[in-house]
Amino acid sequence: MEETQDNIQFQLTDELIEKVEVLVEDKNDKELKLLLNEYHYADIAEILDELDLDDALYVIKLLDSETTSDVLMELDEDNREKVLKNLSAKEIAEEIEELDTDDAADIIAELPEERQQAVISQIEDEEHKAEIRELLTYDDDTAGGLMAKELVKVYETWTVAGCLRRIRGQAKDVTRVHSIYVVNKEEKLIGRLSLKDLIVAKSDQKIADIAKDNVDYVNVKDDAEDVARVMAKYDLEAIPVVDDNQTLLGRITIDDIVDVLKEEADKDYQLAAGITQDVDSDDSIFDLTRARLPWLFLGLVGGVGAFLIMEGFQEAFSKYAVLFFFTPLIAAMAGNVGVQSSAIIVQGLANDDVKGSVNKRLIKEMLLAALNGTILALFLFIFVWITKGEFNTALAISVSLIAVIIVAGLIGTFVPLFLDKRGIDPAIATGPFITTSNDIFGILIYFWIAKLILGI
Amino acid sequence: MEETQDNIQFQLTDELIEKVEVLVEDKNDKELKLLLNEYHYADIAEILDELDLDDALYVIKLLDSETTSDVLMELDEDNREKVLKNLSAKEIAEEIEELDTDDAADIIAELPEERQQAVISQIEDEEHKAEIRELLTYDDDTAGGLMAKELVKVYETWTVAGCLRRIRGQAKDVTRVHSIYVVNKEEKLIGRLSLKDLIVAKSDQKIADIAKDNVDYVNVKDDAEDVARVMAKYDLEAIPVVDDNQTLLGRITIDDIVDVLKEEADKDYQLAAGITQDVDSDDSIFDLTRARLPWLFLGLVGGVGAFLIMEGFQEAFSKYAVLFFFTPLIAAMAGNVGVQSSAIIVQGLANDDVKGSVNKRLIKEMLLAALNGTILALFLFIFVWITKGEFNTALAISVSLIAVIIVAGLIGTFVPLFLDKRGIDPAIATGPFITTSNDIFGILIYFWIAKLILGI
Repeated sequence: MEETQDNIQFQLTDELIEKVEVLVEDKNDKELKLLLNEYHYADIAEILDELDLDDALYVIKLLDSETTSDVLMELDEDNREKVLKNLSAKEIAEEIEELDTDDAADIIAELPEERQQAVISQIEDEEHKAEIRELLTYDDDTAGGLMAKELVKVYETWTVAGCLRRIRGQAKDVTRVHSIYVVNKEEKLIGRLSLKDLIVAKSDQKIADIAKDNVDYVNVKDDAEDVARVMAKYDLEAIPVVDDNQTLLGRITIDDIVDVLKEEADKDYQLAAGITQDVDSDDSIFDLTRARLPWLFLGLVGGVGAFLIMEGFQEAFSKYAVLFFFTPLIAAMAGNVGVQSSAIIVQGLANDDVKGSVNKRLIKEMLLAALNGTILALFLFIFVWITKGEFNTALAISVSLIAVIIVAGLIGTFVPLFLDKRGIDPAIATGPFITTSNDIFGILIYFWIAKLILGI
Repeated sequence: MEETQDNIQFQLTDELIEKVEVLVEDKNDKELKLLLNEYHYADIAEILDELDLDDALYVIKLLDSETTSDVLMELDEDNREKVLKNLSAKEIAEEIEELDTDDAADIIAELPEERQQAVISQIEDEEHKAEIRELLTYDDDTAGGLMAKELVKVYETWTVAGCLRRIRGQAKDVTRVHSIYVVNKEEKLIGRLSLKDLIVAKSDQKIADIAKDNVDYVNVKDDAEDVARVMAKYDLEAIPVVDDNQTLLGRITIDDIVDVLKEEADKDYQLAAGITQDVDSDDSIFDLTRARLPWLFLGLVGGVGAFLIMEGFQEAFSKYAVLFFFTPLIAAMAGNVGVQSSAIIVQGLANDDVKGSVNKRLIKEMLLAALNGTILALFLFIFVWITKGEFNTALAISVSLIAVIIVAGLIGTFVPLFLDKRGIDPAIATGPFITTSNDIFGILIYFWIAKLILGI
């Protein structure tokens, strides 16, 4: 057996893309197959993502379904949509036959409703068809929506020898076995085994004797993020899914959880930046605008609100011009503090670290904000007093800064907690929402305190 | 075998914590062990995180090392530090004996340098000691820093029967076998096998004949984030680690990668909010201040900069007061657009989606910003014209808005790309850094354009 040359660092070079494009143009099927068969399906998908739709379709129709089905799953979502539009129901069904039931259900769910039935009816394997139909009944964001029907299941009454014999058949369809699930004759999940346990056991032992009865599981209706958190916490690589009667329905594997974790992180990050949809830098200007404009508009409205407030105080300007020049500073600090506070709370909620009373947290945030605010206000006070020589003005600005920072910190801490308790994604309360509302509050408080101290 | 009652939804209730505290106070060791042995080590760690240090130490010294070593790994980092301070070198070494080499090395690395040697010298298992010493030589953020020495390795010259016989011994130490790695007699990685492959093969076949030679691997010096990305991309659950000569050194398992992914997401999220250290809402006010104050101070300096700029233009105020009242709006829009642009780029870089020329991307961002800016400026123009009736002023403010948005978008797109090309974490360029610099640029551009259009 020769030494492996498999370098994990697949490089998507312009030369490679060009090479594929040329082979497609020449309809050089033989060379194309030789070239592409060297690559992992995830890499082939990366190549196809860079090709024109026609070239990508050519390649997909050229390669066998076993490869193309996996490639389809790895394509960029938008590209996959275009590819599926250009495949017939029969062609899509051929891909579906090759996919695990969870991926198969995901692909069908991406199709417009009218096409779904057409594709499903073309699936030849009756068992596969029935399983996919079942998976489609579950909500996306639940354990049922994540799970696959492929698993290895043994009955507690079998012997180890009988088990090994029978699972050769089941294991053929299961890419990674992980745990073998033990059920009773009513199909209820009662235990688990590993292949390792099977190998080291004596062949005449009963499954019931060697199985471990402490098997973790999730309910088919559990939230996907909870499943992810549980699998990460207990270092699980697969978890069986049961219904309310403990009947074994399917299993979720860690690679799907890794995808859920990455999508979650991306979504929270985008919300914090004020982007409403799932976009990336390769999307069209139209899609990017549609995702970014709403929050920008909110910022504009907030800015107009700030304008109206400042206009309302404009008499004060004639006496204390310097107050107005510090407005951007006050607004910026309010925004920064608010973003920091909300980020820490949102992250804590996501990691399930936020326990204990809300009041305790608010008091802690108030003390923290007061401490930070006082330190910063001290610097500001010294700066204004030295450069302007006006004690009262310096005092007004500095005291306002402390007040604004405390209020911004409290808003940033309270709002995510409030949303979370009402079942709304607290991540909405990060980003432009917090910065805009804190700008308004900050400027209001600023001028109100200035009025008090300076008697304007 | 009884039906399992294992409910995955472990609830950390106040009653449970109190129960444990009472049992510890009464030194009721028997009941305490009975109670805690029901729980997974990750759950025991959650309980201990809520106890006083003395109570936690009591429990750790009570339970056997096999359990407590796993519990130690799951404790909150700060709590683990306190616990380790209160254990003797011998006691820590006993925990180390029970841990896999990657966790063992991580714990030792957390100790102050003086203690590390003391603990290592107390480890009885010579092989374990040598392996840990080796792992400590690798940098934290590399494959070497992530990997464990525990794996199952077979030589290509063995038969299937001989293999099964020998791996029973190796597999004992390996929690999850995943792939079995095949090496030649120079210990170089040349292929892989799964337990499933072994089971379905004939007992007299040679390993060399049934092994797969397309084995993915990473180099011991590869960056941890690259390893994570690769494992997620190819749906791997374990990956072997080799040196420059292809010698098999260790392996990384998916549960470690899940942790890396979560820490990465947390870190980027915190950087975007302007938090410089790894803090969570349970940290002390002192630690939280130390993490949050630096960026707030940067914001303060930026605010002072904005003040100086506005002061420089104050003559304009007497004629065009309304200009000043719109400054917060301009600054806020600049900040929002900058954050959106940088978030999309940083996310794209993290997902390795950003290919192609930087110039193309900047041009696209400019068009996008021009489009968004024009739409928003139109609304603003109509608002100012209707409420103020001054055409020129409305024009000045609206044109400035477009210019500011374009510049903010370009800065937000360019800076992360620039940092990334120079090997600096682009996530630094999100959050307060972008909002503060965009505030300054925004206000500068605003008044400069206003001067041009209004001739002040």
